[in-house]
Amino acid sequence: MDMNLNKKYMIMEIAKSNTKDNRPFIKVVLIDKDGVQIQGIMFDSNKLKFDPQKGDVVDVSGTIQSYNGQFQIKINNMSKMPEEESKDFLPKGDFDENQLYDEFVSFVESNLQDRFIKALFREFKNDQDVTTKFKKMPAAKNVHHAYIGGLLEHTYSVVRLAVIMSNYYKVNRDLLMAGAIFHDIGKVYELDISKGFDYTDSGKLIGHLLLGIELVNSYCAKIDNFPELYRHVINHMIASHHGLLEYGSPKKPKTLEAIILHHIDDMDAKVNTFKSIFIKDNITAGGWSNYDRLLERQLFNHNIMMEDSDA
Amino acid sequence: MDMNLNKKYMIMEIAKSNTKDNRPFIKVVLIDKDGVQIQGIMFDSNKLKFDPQKGDVVDVSGTIQSYNGQFQIKINNMSKMPEEESKDFLPKGDFDENQLYDEFVSFVESNLQDRFIKALFREFKNDQDVTTKFKKMPAAKNVHHAYIGGLLEHTYSVVRLAVIMSNYYKVNRDLLMAGAIFHDIGKVYELDISKGFDYTDSGKLIGHLLLGIELVNSYCAKIDNFPELYRHVINHMIASHHGLLEYGSPKKPKTLEAIILHHIDDMDAKVNTFKSIFIKDNITAGGWSNYDRLLERQLFNHNIMMEDSDA
Amino acid sequence: MDMNLNKKYMIMEIAKSNTKDNRPFIKVVLIDKDGVQIQGIMFDSNKLKFDPQKGDVVDVSGTIQSYNGQFQIKINNMSKMPEEESKDFLPKGDFDENQLYDEFVSFVESNLQDRFIKALFREFKNDQDVTTKFKKMPAAKNVHHAYIGGLLEHTYSVVRLAVIMSNYYKVNRDLLMAGAIFHDIGKVYELDISKGFDYTDSGKLIGHLLLGIELVNSYCAKIDNFPELYRHVINHMIASHHGLLEYGSPKKPKTLEAIILHHIDDMDAKVNTFKSIFIKDNITAGGWSNYDRLLERQLFNHNIMMEDSDA
Amino acid sequence: MDMNLNKKYMIMEIAKSNTKDNRPFIKVVLIDKDGVQIQGIMFDSNKLKFDPQKGDVVDVSGTIQSYNGQFQIKINNMSKMPEEESKDFLPKGDFDENQLYDEFVSFVESNLQDRFIKALFREFKNDQDVTTKFKKMPAAKNVHHAYIGGLLEHTYSVVRLAVIMSNYYKVNRDLLMAGAIFHDIGKVYELDISKGFDYTDSGKLIGHLLLGIELVNSYCAKIDNFPELYRHVINHMIASHHGLLEYGSPKKPKTLEAIILHHIDDMDAKVNTFKSIFIKDNITAGGWSNYDRLLERQLFNHNIMMEDSDA
Amino acid sequence: MDMNLNKKYMIMEIAKSNTKDNRPFIKVVLIDKDGVQIQGIMFDSNKLKFDPQKGDVVDVSGTIQSYNGQFQIKINNMSKMPEEESKDFLPKGDFDENQLYDEFVSFVESNLQDRFIKALFREFKNDQDVTTKFKKMPAAKNVHHAYIGGLLEHTYSVVRLAVIMSNYYKVNRDLLMAGAIFHDIGKVYELDISKGFDYTDSGKLIGHLLLGIELVNSYCAKIDNFPELYRHVINHMIASHHGLLEYGSPKKPKTLEAIILHHIDDMDAKVNTFKSIFIKDNITAGGWSNYDRLLERQLFNHNIMMEDSDA
Amino acid sequence: MDMNLNKKYMIMEIAKSNTKDNRPFIKVVLIDKDGVQIQGIMFDSNKLKFDPQKGDVVDVSGTIQSYNGQFQIKINNMSKMPEEESKDFLPKGDFDENQLYDEFVSFVESNLQDRFIKALFREFKNDQDVTTKFKKMPAAKNVHHAYIGGLLEHTYSVVRLAVIMSNYYKVNRDLLMAGAIFHDIGKVYELDISKGFDYTDSGKLIGHLLLGIELVNSYCAKIDNFPELYRHVINHMIASHHGLLEYGSPKKPKTLEAIILHHIDDMDAKVNTFKSIFIKDNITAGGWSNYDRLLERQLFNHNIMMEDSDA
Repeated sequence: MDMNLNKKYMIMEIAKSNTKDNRPFIKVVLIDKDGVQIQGIMFDSNKLKFDPQKGDVVDVSGTIQSYNGQFQIKINNMSKMPEEESKDFLPKGDFDENQLYDEFVSFVESNLQDRFIKALFREFKNDQDVTTKFKKMPAAKNVHHAYIGGLLEHTYSVVRLAVIMSNYYKVNRDLLMAGAIFHDIGKVYELDISKGFDYTDSGKLIGHLLLGIELVNSYCAKIDNFPELYRHVINHMIASHHGLLEYGSPKKPKTLEAIILHHIDDMDAKVNTFKSIFIKDNITAGGWSNYDRLLERQLFNHNIMMEDSDA
Repeated sequence: MDMNLNKKYMIMEIAKSNTKDNRPFIKVVLIDKDGVQIQGIMFDSNKLKFDPQKGDVVDVSGTIQSYNGQFQIKINNMSKMPEEESKDFLPKGDFDENQLYDEFVSFVESNLQDRFIKALFREFKNDQDVTTKFKKMPAAKNVHHAYIGGLLEHTYSVVRLAVIMSNYYKVNRDLLMAGAIFHDIGKVYELDISKGFDYTDSGKLIGHLLLGIELVNSYCAKIDNFPELYRHVINHMIASHHGLLEYGSPKKPKTLEAIILHHIDDMDAKVNTFKSIFIKDNITAGGWSNYDRLLERQLFNHNIMMEDSDA
Repeated sequence: MDMNLNKKYMIMEIAKSNTKDNRPFIKVVLIDKDGVQIQGIMFDSNKLKFDPQKGDVVDVSGTIQSYNGQFQIKINNMSKMPEEESKDFLPKGDFDENQLYDEFVSFVESNLQDRFIKALFREFKNDQDVTTKFKKMPAAKNVHHAYIGGLLEHTYSVVRLAVIMSNYYKVNRDLLMAGAIFHDIGKVYELDISKGFDYTDSGKLIGHLLLGIELVNSYCAKIDNFPELYRHVINHMIASHHGLLEYGSPKKPKTLEAIILHHIDDMDAKVNTFKSIFIKDNITAGGWSNYDRLLERQLFNHNIMMEDSDA
Repeated sequence: MDMNLNKKYMIMEIAKSNTKDNRPFIKVVLIDKDGVQIQGIMFDSNKLKFDPQKGDVVDVSGTIQSYNGQFQIKINNMSKMPEEESKDFLPKGDFDENQLYDEFVSFVESNLQDRFIKALFREFKNDQDVTTKFKKMPAAKNVHHAYIGGLLEHTYSVVRLAVIMSNYYKVNRDLLMAGAIFHDIGKVYELDISKGFDYTDSGKLIGHLLLGIELVNSYCAKIDNFPELYRHVINHMIASHHGLLEYGSPKKPKTLEAIILHHIDDMDAKVNTFKSIFIKDNITAGGWSNYDRLLERQLFNHNIMMEDSDA
Repeated sequence: MDMNLNKKYMIMEIAKSNTKDNRPFIKVVLIDKDGVQIQGIMFDSNKLKFDPQKGDVVDVSGTIQSYNGQFQIKINNMSKMPEEESKDFLPKGDFDENQLYDEFVSFVESNLQDRFIKALFREFKNDQDVTTKFKKMPAAKNVHHAYIGGLLEHTYSVVRLAVIMSNYYKVNRDLLMAGAIFHDIGKVYELDISKGFDYTDSGKLIGHLLLGIELVNSYCAKIDNFPELYRHVINHMIASHHGLLEYGSPKKPKTLEAIILHHIDDMDAKVNTFKSIFIKDNITAGGWSNYDRLLERQLFNHNIMMEDSDA
Repeated sequence: MDMNLNKKYMIMEIAKSNTKDNRPFIKVVLIDKDGVQIQGIMFDSNKLKFDPQKGDVVDVSGTIQSYNGQFQIKINNMSKMPEEESKDFLPKGDFDENQLYDEFVSFVESNLQDRFIKALFREFKNDQDVTTKFKKMPAAKNVHHAYIGGLLEHTYSVVRLAVIMSNYYKVNRDLLMAGAIFHDIGKVYELDISKGFDYTDSGKLIGHLLLGIELVNSYCAKIDNFPELYRHVINHMIASHHGLLEYGSPKKPKTLEAIILHHIDDMDAKVNTFKSIFIKDNITAGGWSNYDRLLERQLFNHNIMMEDSDA
């Protein structure tokens, strides 16, 4: 049942070992452009012309073997592709990132009124390195919004909810929007999409809460007379948005905007997670998902449609 | 510094004891119509013409004594007032309950579309005993919305958020509204305002989640062909709306509507709690509240106003 | 080492996929009448004459393949058997359910004295649908009493312990018996043995505590003048019998009968679990079981026999 | 309202301080023979002829002062009584300890059969120092069986339950009895009734689990050929009887006898606690207790009597 | 027993209220230069010439009243002293801060070797505002090292332990020293000694971990070519030094230096806490402390001296 | 790709089963003298001349098969080697145990001064059975110091830290050393290296804390006038050294020596764990370890060398 194969993949995981008789071999997890994963194994891997790393895009030649309904590639050889091809191998959302980013910017700008928050957003918008990453980054390695542009999509959603809720509860709209815009901004430095959604060193050592605060502080420093109280209140929203210490927030929410931000962020992430699981487990037509280990439950897509009372 | 006093109070707490020489005395916590609490003590309480109970409205004559800036009433005598006077002694919201109830009903009716959920709401509306209590009940003994009409106010707020969120996240609006309407409905039997916001026996034995489900089940039983799946999904929303087992929900939220209901309910309760603490601790002009033992934190009312960028 | 095979199995788990070249295949976990599990795989599963589901009894033809000491069936074809055959494929206790049920009924009837509890038990006995399920149901999907009739066996045991303990501690025997009889009764609707001990929708959405209370409430409604306090106290025992909120009880035990019920239920379940593990791990002759992940420990069957002092 | 007073008390708590002008004074909590507590204060306490300590029985002369319904003694002088009078000042059970002890011994002896466990019990019985303390000791400083003879009463109860349960579940009766007899035996060295139910140094440093194991080991050492496995299995029951690590057991129950012992011990303690609270809070005629901080709940004494169906 | 009094105090706590007849009064907790606390009450406080605040040093005239062995001042009047007097009213360590600071600096400088860490320390040393605060600040509001100079004393101790442990475990000494020097540096902005050891706004909103990281980042920014990895690794030590998320660290220790820093910091704080409790509870001559609510235990000062074997 | 093989292994894990056609087979995990693990399978295992057990050293003949980069041995036959060969198959530290033990003894003896602690150490030294095991035992089955001599190495390290810390914090050096020497001594009876680092019955039933206290008590019993307070204080250090109840300590540390012992023990174990993971995961040249499930984190070996400032 073997088939020859010649195809481009991204390396998701790689492990290097030696066989009993000391010939080097590598085992890899590969992903193709459609997001389908497959395992691969290559013996005598010292014959490769490059040192393969997680995140590399490679052109693979080999044969497909099957066992027990699973397939693996016995790799004969592979060559490394240019780094820019990597973007083709990551899960994508169902939107165009540039267009969504423009929408996001125009939504923010048409709603902001406070001159300091406006200035803060301007600093962000002018930070080429950050906005470029911001458009591409997923909101998490897995869990929720785990696809190209997920961070942007989630942030934009939380910002819209921030506007809705600040009107509903009569709190400071511009501060809450600032909290929404920057609550996850540290993720642009926490994750590295060039390596297949992996964490960076600073991401693992410090995490996106502190990286986000550091970034916001750098913007504030560039704005004349940016009030310290603003800065502390925004930093507080970023620091406390996970809601509880055991979820990684060094402080619990202590302001109205911080408690609202925590809830709309958590709700938006959970709704996206539920919907993603329904899609992943193919429960769109109704029924129960598989048991989810992070949520510690099965999810139910009841599929009940509203019955019009005139029907 | 003693002063004579003759005034109506409600009994909030009562403890009966004997002095060393075996004369009966009672200690009470009293509340006046303005919500101000004061302690009272009455010696030789066997001379009273009635057996005083928590929740009784009493006409007290005595003298006020002070010590260390605190006051207590040395009660000479008291007589019991008719039960209907009790409503004057409970904290009130800043709204008219009947008017708010009418608003609530018309909001619900103008938004519902599904014939079963409509029928369910009709059963509720026709349940005189329940709606009468529903208009008066606080949402909790203390913590959040702890005043006459608090349950109505909180429920109406969660229903409006349910409409907003079902539009935002494209979930079944009528089911989410049903969850919002009935999530705390069991509180009409869990609390007893005739006793000064105390818990009932069934409230302490079973709790509002199960009392609410029992009530919804009784409504469903009266509706022809009410679908079992609807009933289970609504019961699930009520059962799971505290979000976690350790908060008293026997099931975690497993549907999109259940997870959204949990978040908007929790957010609405927390925002109300924050605002109530700012008022109670007089932090409306900005600054820090006292340490709150339930929230395990101090709250900060930053008092930042948005600065118009044109200013 | 392949062998042809033609045998009846029940489908325990089923997953449907497509191969790389888009041919449908299914992977199943099968169980035979002796309770032995085996994995199966069938390619080109579209040729089947029925849509296979969890819980189906199927007549399988195929070949057995082995790898690494594990076996799987390469399925050539299978046909669906009538539903009533499913009962042959479930683990069984070492007793006759009908006989044990009769014993249980006669034990209960000879011990009950209170006319309301007697009436309650009569309603149960006359509920054909419930008693039929009650005789067959396991007490849990796995963990304790996980075999046909397990719920009956466990309930009967807790009822006997209830009689013993109400005599020992001088509490209300009939109420404690009522709590014992109905504490797990909701499991008749929580589990579905026609699907191989799987959970029902309402089981996953509401759970057996609430389903049991709903059932008891429906019985009470049929009894003239059934006292509300009785009903609340029995509901409380059902609701609180897991002992702690984090174990899924929305209320902690607050009456003497409720605290006793919690302990005898938990003890009976644990003793059965210990004994089942000793059997499963074949430790009847003494020694240590494997590490049990739910109990978070290894168990020790010390196998010490009492030495007669006259010996 | 001052009254002169001359009466014997035991000192429950004592704190020594100096007034602003450096005159020594002491504050005490006193208990009389009826178990009634009162606070006392003595200025210029340096004039006392002895150094008062917790647990001392003292003859107090002074005046009673009242404030706010509470009383305190302004102590003029006090003298120390002989230590043996202390036994009159401790809460008592409603039984004679010597008679109950004899019952306990005869119950144990008529049920034990294994020669090693019999020998072990003989060692205990011959340990004058231990049995003397065992008859008097409470089972806890407060919480459950917190009165003279409470340890004996609780132990005897757990032993009877051990016999019942070993018959019911067919486990090793004599081992389970040994576990029951010795599970709390370390309390004879953990508490010191000469000091008013206070903890000893070793009680606070090591605790009754380890003190009990040490004692059992000393008995085993005196018995020829006492099997090491018996000793380990009995030590295990003592060590694990709190059920969980966070309750102070260094090991979880891993044998059938250990898991049963844990449940009957916990049930017996809880039932006693519930009953004691009903008495303490005077809820014997039905109703709700005060909120109990250790149990984290109010308790309900429903007071339902069984209604004879012939009535 | 009233005495006139005229003395300087610092205001530790202040609450402003109105009497029933609407006359303003204040209640205060005052501390004198010896650290002795006393409560005060002043009626008609509107006659004061200033608005009294927490942290104010005031010259108080009034009378001392006693009740039940406790004293309070009935304040007739008070006037505000210059702010610089506040330093006399805070608990002090048994050392001279300037001298200890010089020792600390010379210890650090004689041990540092790495040029970047040296530069980092130089930035700190030149930050007048920070070092001035650093010399005076306590290490905590209460708990450990809760006295003037406590932060310096604790930091110096952890730095010495860092040198010992880096030699012992062969880890990067200079990095571990940097972690030790800066782990609590954020406390200079978290606490405000001008207000009697109270927390600042940014202390409550962000906390000393994040404030410390912000400060270190500002120093790094001034040093040419300061390596990013150094910065992340030092930030990680600061962020993770509480060891666990639930203790407020957003990351767990992941480097050898971080895990060692966590342990020596925690040990040094605990040893100081134990010693402080022995002093506070006057257990220096041996025996048991009072029950400590934060540590959830009583402490034992065994007072055993080593017995020379030649004795 | 099969190869014949004839080699000695130790059996780490063994499971015995029957094939479908009832032929007995065994699956084993084997380890060779270099610590490399491999799986083995033997069909028709009834032909073996002995009953293979965990911990047996066996001479295996068979063929190596590979699949997917993993290897297993198809065993044709094996014979049992003498028990003393087992020591060659266990992981080893990088030191000579006898030499390290001599160092340890001489370090202890040159530092001890108190005659009772000296006597206690003498008893230990003379306990041939214990010291023999002590030299060989690992400090844990896995986690930290999990190699021959690991217990000795860890104990010696904690003893040295005890000397350092008792000087640093001015606590009773000899008591802290006694705590350090004996804190893990119960492991000599908790683990059994003749079975490949497995736990003994008493290890699983009682654990090393209680086994160590039992051993220390037996030594104390042999020393004239050994003070009870010494014994309790040492027992307390052993009992409390895990720091928290949930980590298996029945008491929390309550003395200065106990709290220090807890910290240096935990630090030493963690540092060894970190270093072992860096070696195991081959991160000695810098970078991140794999995710460690017990530590719940990845570890970072930053590999930063101190840069001399003169460079």
